[in-house]
Amino acid sequence: MNASLTEYLSTRIALDETEQNAVSELLETKEFKRSHYLLKEGEVSNAFFFLQKGCIRLFYNVDGDEKSAFFYTEGQFVSSYESFIKQSPCNHYLQCVEDCEVVVIGFEAAEALLKLSPKFDALARIMMEEELALYQRIVASYVTQNPEKRYQQFSSENPHLMQRLPQHYIASYLGVSAETLSRIKKRVLSRTS
Amino acid sequence: MNASLTEYLSTRIALDETEQNAVSELLETKEFKRSHYLLKEGEVSNAFFFLQKGCIRLFYNVDGDEKSAFFYTEGQFVSSYESFIKQSPCNHYLQCVEDCEVVVIGFEAAEALLKLSPKFDALARIMMEEELALYQRIVASYVTQNPEKRYQQFSSENPHLMQRLPQHYIASYLGVSAETLSRIKKRVLSRTS
Repeated sequence: MNASLTEYLSTRIALDETEQNAVSELLETKEFKRSHYLLKEGEVSNAFFFLQKGCIRLFYNVDGDEKSAFFYTEGQFVSSYESFIKQSPCNHYLQCVEDCEVVVIGFEAAEALLKLSPKFDALARIMMEEELALYQRIVASYVTQNPEKRYQQFSSENPHLMQRLPQHYIASYLGVSAETLSRIKKRVLSRTS
Repeated sequence: MNASLTEYLSTRIALDETEQNAVSELLETKEFKRSHYLLKEGEVSNAFFFLQKGCIRLFYNVDGDEKSAFFYTEGQFVSSYESFIKQSPCNHYLQCVEDCEVVVIGFEAAEALLKLSPKFDALARIMMEEELALYQRIVASYVTQNPEKRYQQFSSENPHLMQRLPQHYIASYLGVSAETLSRIKKRVLSRTS
């Protein structure tokens, strides 16, 4: 299940030696323990991340309740665009659900890569196209589906995640209580068995 | 309220004469009447648009019900990324809410511009950063707000839109019935008056 940034890059764009060296020199791979926060509400995002191993959740704190909006897994970029671009305080949290290994793309490193070669602009474009398509899918699921349908889609698209996530994270992602999630799971199971 | 692509570009990147000429030659400005569909469910997106005048809504058809997910106005790009990138059938509709004037950025034109100059990669990156920040805000509103709070945020961020949109579009955007929207408006009004 592990992913590597090198592999991600090689399937998308041909970097020459100078460009590859710049990537290795400017970007650092870090390990974080489960429950570690990569970013907290109110902080300014100064980096985005490529997730090589583990799972990260994005959640909002609403009057003391943690509302999970998204779960990132291996091979995905994790970012808080608005805060990163505007260098403004972030309105959410990024937390490791498991022990994680991430490549850190800091603000200065990103600027340096973009200055070094236009290929990194192309790469950023490709990466963001993929992320925008993902976001359009998420918004679609909110607009068109009830919690039960969202559960079915989420579990069929992310079978590997269902065992890795605490149930209350999934419940808050669906916007339902733990009891309702339990009823939904029973209904879905009785229909498929 | 009108916007122009030329102005949008000039505030973001310095194009030389060749690049500016390519933009004028490759991109076409078109006018569409109210109710016109720029894209329908099942079609493959072969262009994205810069909205110079008017309003466009993105909606899903769910068992015959139109569920509005987004309203674009002057100065915004309108796109169906997943369908455009993968050249796969689209799962939603793009419809003009008013008479519109748009710049059409066709698939081939976009490719030609990207090939001509790396500046268009940088431009695409900037444009998508803005759009991603917007999408992260939309997802946040679904996760953290009830319909009444979403109404308040939507109306305070888009005061000019409130008079331009039919009430049932706003109701479907909030995921409530027309009657509930009417009650929400009364409550909000009684609190602010």
